[in-house]
Amino acid sequence: MTQAVLTLNAGSSSLKVSLFPTTGDVPLASGLADRIGPEGTLRLKTAAGEAIAATGDLTSHAGALAAVIAGFRAAWPDLDLLAVGHRVVHGGADRARPVTVDAALLDDLARLAPFAPLHQPHNLAGIRTAMAAFPGVPQVACFDTAFHRSHPWVNDTFALPRALYDEGVRRYGFHGLSYDYIAGELARIAPHLAEGRVVVAHLGNGASMCGMTGGRSIASTMGFSALDGLPMGTRSGQVDPGVLLYLMDQKGMTPAEISDLLYKRSGLLGLSGLSNDMRELEAAGTPEAAEAIDYFVFRCQREIGSMAAAMGGMDALIFCGGIGENSRLVRTRICDRLGWMGIEIDPGRNAANAQVISSDMASTTVMVVPTNEELVIARAARAAVGLAEREAA
Amino acid sequence: MTQAVLTLNAGSSSLKVSLFPTTGDVPLASGLADRIGPEGTLRLKTAAGEAIAATGDLTSHAGALAAVIAGFRAAWPDLDLLAVGHRVVHGGADRARPVTVDAALLDDLARLAPFAPLHQPHNLAGIRTAMAAFPGVPQVACFDTAFHRSHPWVNDTFALPRALYDEGVRRYGFHGLSYDYIAGELARIAPHLAEGRVVVAHLGNGASMCGMTGGRSIASTMGFSALDGLPMGTRSGQVDPGVLLYLMDQKGMTPAEISDLLYKRSGLLGLSGLSNDMRELEAAGTPEAAEAIDYFVFRCQREIGSMAAAMGGMDALIFCGGIGENSRLVRTRICDRLGWMGIEIDPGRNAANAQVISSDMASTTVMVVPTNEELVIARAARAAVGLAEREAA
Repeated sequence: MTQAVLTLNAGSSSLKVSLFPTTGDVPLASGLADRIGPEGTLRLKTAAGEAIAATGDLTSHAGALAAVIAGFRAAWPDLDLLAVGHRVVHGGADRARPVTVDAALLDDLARLAPFAPLHQPHNLAGIRTAMAAFPGVPQVACFDTAFHRSHPWVNDTFALPRALYDEGVRRYGFHGLSYDYIAGELARIAPHLAEGRVVVAHLGNGASMCGMTGGRSIASTMGFSALDGLPMGTRSGQVDPGVLLYLMDQKGMTPAEISDLLYKRSGLLGLSGLSNDMRELEAAGTPEAAEAIDYFVFRCQREIGSMAAAMGGMDALIFCGGIGENSRLVRTRICDRLGWMGIEIDPGRNAANAQVISSDMASTTVMVVPTNEELVIARAARAAVGLAEREAA
Repeated sequence: MTQAVLTLNAGSSSLKVSLFPTTGDVPLASGLADRIGPEGTLRLKTAAGEAIAATGDLTSHAGALAAVIAGFRAAWPDLDLLAVGHRVVHGGADRARPVTVDAALLDDLARLAPFAPLHQPHNLAGIRTAMAAFPGVPQVACFDTAFHRSHPWVNDTFALPRALYDEGVRRYGFHGLSYDYIAGELARIAPHLAEGRVVVAHLGNGASMCGMTGGRSIASTMGFSALDGLPMGTRSGQVDPGVLLYLMDQKGMTPAEISDLLYKRSGLLGLSGLSNDMRELEAAGTPEAAEAIDYFVFRCQREIGSMAAAMGGMDALIFCGGIGENSRLVRTRICDRLGWMGIEIDPGRNAANAQVISSDMASTTVMVVPTNEELVIARAARAAVGLAEREAA
């Protein structure tokens, strides 16, 4: 009997899956159904990187999930699926941890869709699809907002009339599964730092920072939506609200057009005119690509200063996410002008992608810690069916 | 013959004036025509605080200006007006200093109105009114954006497609007349600091910060509009762009309604539900008033961290503006959690509103420097008619 839990991240036209054993950090397999529809594709592979044959109806999320499971069952004929863990972007103002799904919860989560219209409906459709596919198997919702529920009020509100706060216009913060993972890793590998004031820079195609003190989130650069804060692959990050008024009022753009502009055509792509991918920008060598990197680096520096102020100082800076874990250039550039905060990079360590990349003389530790959102979901799914997490090694 | 220059700040229903002699920092008189219309009021007083009788048609800006001048001419029958200096919110992407007005300039400035629709048209109407009232007298436009034209590109752009930058969607920064004044004062009273990295906190009913290095603006918390950055009396300051999409998309608010919300019903007023005036909030003692102050203080702290990062550190913090110059509580609260930046307030100096309020042990100097935007305008008007500014004392 191969007992396992499934993790599932459902987007508008994609389904990202991993199959985890009942213990340990390494998935049995993972995969992605992409462009779900007439042109749908599905790739599954084992942890060792071997392809798992999988075909089926890829025109719907239900069809794609059936194809995924058929692929896994072919590879592990004795597969016993104990639970499914779901990434859900929005858990609302109060949910600070994963929750096992029932009908009432689904209704509650659906009421949050206006706060995350581009993601929440797809996440919930993923849960419904999995509930239909695996009747009786516990479904566990893991929220990107949950880790930030410890924000003090000043980091939870905007300076808007109270009625808007009461109806839910708050600084929720996102990427919480990643920050949760990093907080746990830090407690394991650098407990003295974990107790201190840490800025975690989750820099990927989506990007944000979290200021955490004693492992609890104090502040995040993302607020009400996943648009705010740092520039991202295609998202603007921080924009003057007056710009939106200008786009509406003077240019007659519709909300849908502005949303498309800020979510899909801005950020690194908008500035470079070339790509949303930092690797391509680093290789491009055009003035526009260089300026896009300059801007990204600069906004990271400013937000690190802002996060440190939110915590009253900073003991460590942690890089994670695709860019944070891999771009030596971006890490160096960000840290280069943070000497005033006690930061100094050791070039050799940075080039080697070492865990600690600051010099021994620096008063602020800089680390690279690969994040693992899927594992956080898998652990929540295990916990929901009573599988005690083994002690951290 | 009493030679003088007039400074003029024209709002939608107000006209703020000062009459300056040809040298020196003290105006002969100043005044305010307010609620221009059927309920218009006008008050003029000398530098010594004595009222100057002034009446007239206060239903239009032209009428109000005529009444102002009639009052001044009654007080100084030999008045010879040499020039008029105007505060103009927007000078566009390139104007880095005051400009003497001609018809072509007025046309150019009118083309910037879409970037500052709430202010620019009124400022220009003020210039036209003064041109009609004083034919042949040079009119000098002084721009709130001018001081910030030294921003490096990373502080001038948003992460939006390049075409928007090219058409003028930039981080202009405002309160430039105030920062210009402070830069000059700092060079006079603390030249060693003026050469360094200085954060100037202009905290009034409008509020922003400027990071300046060697007296030149490097960054500002205000960007495209006067909405961004710090919370203000009735303005929101920084807001997640996703909030505006929510207000449009989910609540069906129009651009005019959102503009009214963010400019007039947010900030300290929105959070406190009580007042836009920091003095009233300090006195109120309600939980909501206390929270509004908490939020204001906190966002100031975060932006100081961000400004320091923009400059690679901070040598001095300067408070100015109505709140910055007068609220001992706000200054103390802001500095209380900035010890990590080398800031420490001397309580006695702060209570006394001393010029330097940091302790002798602190590595970062904190000062209170009263600002004087009118004097900057007066100096520009003098310079335009060849009156050499006397050497700073």
